[in-house]
Amino acid sequence: MHGTSQTITKPIPFDTARLDQLLAEADIDVLVVTSKHNIQYLLGGYRFFFFEYMDAIGVSRYLPVLVYQRGKPENSGYIGCRMEGFEKELDRFWTPHVATSSNYSMQAMQQAVEHIKKLGGKTRRVGVETSFLPADAEATLRRGLPESEIVDAVFPLERLRLRKTPDELAKLRNASDQVVGAMLTTFGKCKPGMTKNEIVETLRREEVNRGLNFDYCLITAGTSQNRAPSDQRLQAGDTISLDSGGNYHGYIGDLCRMGILGEPDQELKDLLGFIEEVQQAARKPIAHGARGGDIYAAAEAPLKASPHRAHVEFLAHGMGLVSHEAPRLTSTGPVPYDAYDAPRPLETGMVVSIETTMKHPKRGFIKLEDTVAVTGNGYEAYGDAGRGWNRIGAR
Amino acid sequence: MHGTSQTITKPIPFDTARLDQLLAEADIDVLVVTSKHNIQYLLGGYRFFFFEYMDAIGVSRYLPVLVYQRGKPENSGYIGCRMEGFEKELDRFWTPHVATSSNYSMQAMQQAVEHIKKLGGKTRRVGVETSFLPADAEATLRRGLPESEIVDAVFPLERLRLRKTPDELAKLRNASDQVVGAMLTTFGKCKPGMTKNEIVETLRREEVNRGLNFDYCLITAGTSQNRAPSDQRLQAGDTISLDSGGNYHGYIGDLCRMGILGEPDQELKDLLGFIEEVQQAARKPIAHGARGGDIYAAAEAPLKASPHRAHVEFLAHGMGLVSHEAPRLTSTGPVPYDAYDAPRPLETGMVVSIETTMKHPKRGFIKLEDTVAVTGNGYEAYGDAGRGWNRIGAR
Repeated sequence: MHGTSQTITKPIPFDTARLDQLLAEADIDVLVVTSKHNIQYLLGGYRFFFFEYMDAIGVSRYLPVLVYQRGKPENSGYIGCRMEGFEKELDRFWTPHVATSSNYSMQAMQQAVEHIKKLGGKTRRVGVETSFLPADAEATLRRGLPESEIVDAVFPLERLRLRKTPDELAKLRNASDQVVGAMLTTFGKCKPGMTKNEIVETLRREEVNRGLNFDYCLITAGTSQNRAPSDQRLQAGDTISLDSGGNYHGYIGDLCRMGILGEPDQELKDLLGFIEEVQQAARKPIAHGARGGDIYAAAEAPLKASPHRAHVEFLAHGMGLVSHEAPRLTSTGPVPYDAYDAPRPLETGMVVSIETTMKHPKRGFIKLEDTVAVTGNGYEAYGDAGRGWNRIGAR
Repeated sequence: MHGTSQTITKPIPFDTARLDQLLAEADIDVLVVTSKHNIQYLLGGYRFFFFEYMDAIGVSRYLPVLVYQRGKPENSGYIGCRMEGFEKELDRFWTPHVATSSNYSMQAMQQAVEHIKKLGGKTRRVGVETSFLPADAEATLRRGLPESEIVDAVFPLERLRLRKTPDELAKLRNASDQVVGAMLTTFGKCKPGMTKNEIVETLRREEVNRGLNFDYCLITAGTSQNRAPSDQRLQAGDTISLDSGGNYHGYIGDLCRMGILGEPDQELKDLLGFIEEVQQAARKPIAHGARGGDIYAAAEAPLKASPHRAHVEFLAHGMGLVSHEAPRLTSTGPVPYDAYDAPRPLETGMVVSIETTMKHPKRGFIKLEDTVAVTGNGYEAYGDAGRGWNRIGAR
């Protein structure tokens, strides 16, 4: 790679002015990005197919590195592994500098260091993702740039991804629709005697056969509150919750739907009806300009009036390439930037996952989780089907 | 978790004497394991389902941590995340100490530090996986154990996994069989006009519907040497190579098979015949007690006699939970432990991937890759079907 500035001949897939502003606020001169999700974002959807799931190879690992200098997108460099030469040949990268000659994490970072050293301008504070930068690569970075201060850049990167583009929204909608479609088909295929493991395997295949990558499924059956897949067998009268994440080109659909083997009695109808009431109340205030915290305030009204309050949890959180991301709407413990967006306005293109969970002491685990995108004058719910008691074995 | 030694009530799923010996050779007192594959190995197949594919959550990530003190398996501790409480309830862990109260990487490592501090005995040298330990967790570890030296432990962990158990071999065999089965079905479904992307998507679903997790597919079509999935369309007369990895419970099947849209002419038959000759020669010496380097020596005989030598590459490498692991049979660049096993004896239970690749300047990319397990008096090949020219669209 050359250190001199190059002409950018392809469109840059993100808002460089916004990123420059976020980096200025964090006092970061150079970004060194190493997580798959942020690499994907900054490269406009690119994710190297060979290491989409795996990382390990030999005694080290695959480590993609993207270098971005504040205010100088023309200095951007991408360091991939040797096999990514195939992708370079297909002209997949917008960054003016692309190297595809590394095999291992330290080698990749050494090439990033050499690129940074050739840049003009400030490199005083270098932003990294400390949770996604391996210790060996960090040591290489520190050795190579002894004058630079290494700081965490996860927060500005998360803010950059906050408002989704129409293309991202289409992917999130598709992921949500297909996850729910897979769930409804899976409920139809369940039978008494099937294990939770078998049900999850059925759902996994249904998601994959709809074009998704399956991420996980939390599952309860009967009155147990245990949500891990296991050899527990489905019995007549059991309720089931399926809470699954599946992604479409990295964008996660994450929803929860309920099934029942038989017919729900009035109490079960009322309990799920109450969950539904909270879910609908929570989405009602959503629109561009509403406060993030309004979602919690709206959910609180039916909750505090309910005799079930003690065993119901309400949660709302942003989602996208990461299953919990900005907007950050609530306090979840000693975490930086906690509830950052609660007093701030919602904006068009934000996507919020809304979940109401009941751990009923006698009737078991009852939950709905929905995906809601903020629009100019309201919201759109993705994958909004199957919200009642889905009859098991009915298809 | 308690620092005092506990009684181990469940069988330990690996050879603790062997691990203790490897740690003694590396002068490591305490192991702190954070990669999914080594956690899985040390916990007897356990991999937390929720984060099987993803890592990112919130502004941090999931980080499982396993602590093992040399010579004292009774001091072992596993630090999972909060949701792994469901797994603990199902009694999935053999380690006497299990904590499931962390949410983020630094929190998990802080709990590991507290566990280590309570251990008696030496903690002078702490072994980590530097490519799989995030920088934030490493900083927590160093702050918490300022007297300890942090060293890399990837090599002893890889040696521990070198000889596969019958259960591991069964998983590798199944993965290999299913990958090849999926390829043969995919060849049958290909048609002129299909893109490489569509062919890979077909293969992905075939692997998943056989119970595997799809990892990747390298693919060529026609005379192009480009192995990335793309919108290149299949044309009459094209040859295709499918080189795919898919795993069964983490154990990788990685094989390459050839297809053709039409009938192969004599030259194509001869070229694939030559690849097959090299592949068969390479596996011939394999048996418990043979030298690792004998595989290369055996492949070299037909190679050096061939007019195709200049555009043929031969490679043999161990495989298992990681796609390239011990036995290490050749030099692949400036990598530690390179060719470590070439002068050493092969042993029962080692698994070797053998690949012969021709980049023919006129006829394109032609390759076979096979999986061979070392047995007492020879070898067993897994997924050994479909080694000739598979006719495309024939099923």
